[in-house]
Amino acid sequence: MPLTVVGSIAYDSVRTPFGERERMLGGAAVHFALAARFFDEVRVVGPVGADFGEDDLEVMRARGVDVSDVERIAGGRTFFWRGEYGWDLNTRETLDTQLGVFERFDPKLSERSRASDVLFLANIQPSLQQRVRAQLPDARFVALDSMNLWIEIAREELVRAIRGADCLILNDAELRQLTGMPNLLSAAREVLAWGPSGQTPRGPRVIVAKQGEYGSALVTRDRFFALPAYPLENVIDPTGAGDTFAGGLVGYIAANTPVGGAPRAQASGAERPEQVADTNAVQLDDELLRTAMAYATVLASFNVEEFGTERVCRLTREEIDARLRELASMTSFSSAAETAPAGSASPAA
Amino acid sequence: MPLTVVGSIAYDSVRTPFGERERMLGGAAVHFALAARFFDEVRVVGPVGADFGEDDLEVMRARGVDVSDVERIAGGRTFFWRGEYGWDLNTRETLDTQLGVFERFDPKLSERSRASDVLFLANIQPSLQQRVRAQLPDARFVALDSMNLWIEIAREELVRAIRGADCLILNDAELRQLTGMPNLLSAAREVLAWGPSGQTPRGPRVIVAKQGEYGSALVTRDRFFALPAYPLENVIDPTGAGDTFAGGLVGYIAANTPVGGAPRAQASGAERPEQVADTNAVQLDDELLRTAMAYATVLASFNVEEFGTERVCRLTREEIDARLRELASMTSFSSAAETAPAGSASPAA
Repeated sequence: MPLTVVGSIAYDSVRTPFGERERMLGGAAVHFALAARFFDEVRVVGPVGADFGEDDLEVMRARGVDVSDVERIAGGRTFFWRGEYGWDLNTRETLDTQLGVFERFDPKLSERSRASDVLFLANIQPSLQQRVRAQLPDARFVALDSMNLWIEIAREELVRAIRGADCLILNDAELRQLTGMPNLLSAAREVLAWGPSGQTPRGPRVIVAKQGEYGSALVTRDRFFALPAYPLENVIDPTGAGDTFAGGLVGYIAANTPVGGAPRAQASGAERPEQVADTNAVQLDDELLRTAMAYATVLASFNVEEFGTERVCRLTREEIDARLRELASMTSFSSAAETAPAGSASPAA
Repeated sequence: MPLTVVGSIAYDSVRTPFGERERMLGGAAVHFALAARFFDEVRVVGPVGADFGEDDLEVMRARGVDVSDVERIAGGRTFFWRGEYGWDLNTRETLDTQLGVFERFDPKLSERSRASDVLFLANIQPSLQQRVRAQLPDARFVALDSMNLWIEIAREELVRAIRGADCLILNDAELRQLTGMPNLLSAAREVLAWGPSGQTPRGPRVIVAKQGEYGSALVTRDRFFALPAYPLENVIDPTGAGDTFAGGLVGYIAANTPVGGAPRAQASGAERPEQVADTNAVQLDDELLRTAMAYATVLASFNVEEFGTERVCRLTREEIDARLRELASMTSFSSAAETAPAGSASPAA
C-alpha cells in the first residue's frame, strides 16, 4: 500500500569520534523514505529552502521516492542541525538548530499524498502531526515518532496526536518519560489504553520502543517481541538510525498488508474491539510485525555504518536480506527442552 | 559434569520501591547454585560465620546443592550487604558492606570440590579467584564473574584471573571499563585475544555481556549471539539476577557437554588453536551456548520477580521450560525474505 511520510528534510553537520561532515543530506523524512522505498512506494511531504540542492532531491528521486510534495519555499532556508557525539556514541550534543522553513510549515498534502493507505508522522510538532493526520482520515495504518522536547513542552498535544495513530515509535527513555512509568511493559500498556481521539476511529495498538545499541521491543495488547541490535564493530554515525528503523518497519508493514479487503472477523475479536469496530484498520498479524521489526533492525544497522545517508544510498535488497538471515541466526535457539536434569543430584523442585 | 562454585554466601538487607527485606539469604554463590542445580550437581565453596542459620544451609541442601565445603568460621560473622534500589531499579546504592569471614578467606577445596570438571569463580578478589583456579588445574570449563571495584583497584590481578578462565561473564559497562573500548564487540574481541596465563593452558574463549533489563550478548572468536531479557511488568528485586543468570548459563553447559571423550579435531581448528592444543578443554558447540544463554535469561527473569531467593527456591523445571518456549516465540521471526519489493515503485538498488 502506498506510504506517505511527513517530516523534516534537512542538512546535518555532524561530528563523531570517527570524523565529521558538513551539510549532509538528512532529516527524518529523508532517512525514513530511503529505507521504506526498499519495500513500497513512498511519498515525501516536507518543506525545503532556496538553498536545497536539486542533486539532493535527485538522491531520493533516483531511488524511486516520490518527491513531488517536497515544497520549495522561495527565499527560505532548509532545516539545519549541527551535533556532536560522545566517545561511545550514546550521548550527543546539539550545537545548533535552525528551523528555517519549518518555522512556518503548514502541510498541505496533494491528493496523491492524501490517497496513501499508510502514513508516517516523523518527529515534528505534535499539532502539525494532528493536522496532517486529519488530512488522511481513511488511512489504514498510521505510525508516529516524537521526542523528549515535545513531551516536555507540548505533552497534551502529543497525547492527542498519539491517540490518532495506530503505532507509536519512541526511544525507550522517552516512552518512560511520556508515561512516568519506569517499566517498559507498563509504559507501553499505558499508551495502549489511551484509546482513539475524537477525530480518529482507533487508538494506538502497537508500541515500539527503540533501545539504541541494545535493540528494540514491540508491545501490543497481547504480544511482546524484542530483538537485539545487529552487532557492529564500526559504528560511524548514528544520525538517522531511528528514522531508518521506522522506514524499515513501516515500509515492510505497508508492503505486506493485504490491500482492499475488509479485515476478517477475529476469533479473539473480543480482546481487540477497536479492530473490529473500524473496518478500515489493517490487520496486524503477529508474524508480519516480527518480520517488520527484523527488517527495521537491519536497515538501521546499515545506516550507522557510514555518515548520514551514505551507506543506505548504495544499499541493495540482497544485502538487506543477507543480513536479515544473519540476524535470525544470531537470535534463534532451540527451546525443545530436550535435556532432563543430569548429574547425580536430585534437585527438589 | 559436576560443578563447583566459589563465592560469597551472604545476608542481604534490601530496599526496593516495592518493599524491603532484612537479612535475607543471598550471596553470589547461593544465587548461582540455586539456579545451576536445575541442570547439574553443584558444590558450593565459601565461608559463613557463627551467625549463619542451619535453616539457610538447609535451603540449599534440600534443593540438591552440595554444601559440605561451606566452611563455618567459629566466632566469625557472615558477609553482609545492605543496599537500596532507585525508582527504575537500574541504579542501586550500597549502604553497608561487612566482609566478615570473607576478610581472611583462604579457600581450601576438598578433594570432592577439586574433582569438578566445571568451575565458576563468582565475584571475589581476583587473587582469590586465581588461587582457586590453581586448585583445579584440570578443570574442563572455567567461568568467571567480577565487578567494577576490581577493575579499579586490582586490574592486573583481574586480567590474570580472566586469562585462566574459559568464559568471562561481566556487565557490559564493566566490559567496556575493563578494556577501555566503548564498542561491545571490540571490547569482547580484545579479551578473547588475551590468551592463556602462565599457569593455565587456555585463554578466554567466550565473553558474555550482561545488559540488565536489555538482555545479554555472547561473543566468541567467530560467533555472536544476543537475547533480550524476558519482559516483566513487575520486577521486585534485581539482587542476585546476574549470579542466577550465570547459574543457568554455566549449569546448562556443565550438564550438556559430553563427559570423558577427548575433543574431536575440528575442521576450523586453525582458527581455534588453543582448543586443539588443550585436549582437556570442552567443545563449546554453538547451539549449546545459545540454549545456555536462553536458560540463563529465563532463570534471571524468575529471580527478579520476588525478593532474594524467594522465587527461585520454589521454581520448577516445568516453569523454566515453559518460559523458555515463550522466550523463543518472543524472539523468533521469519527470515525467508519471501517478499519481493511491492507497490508501483521501482527502487533503484
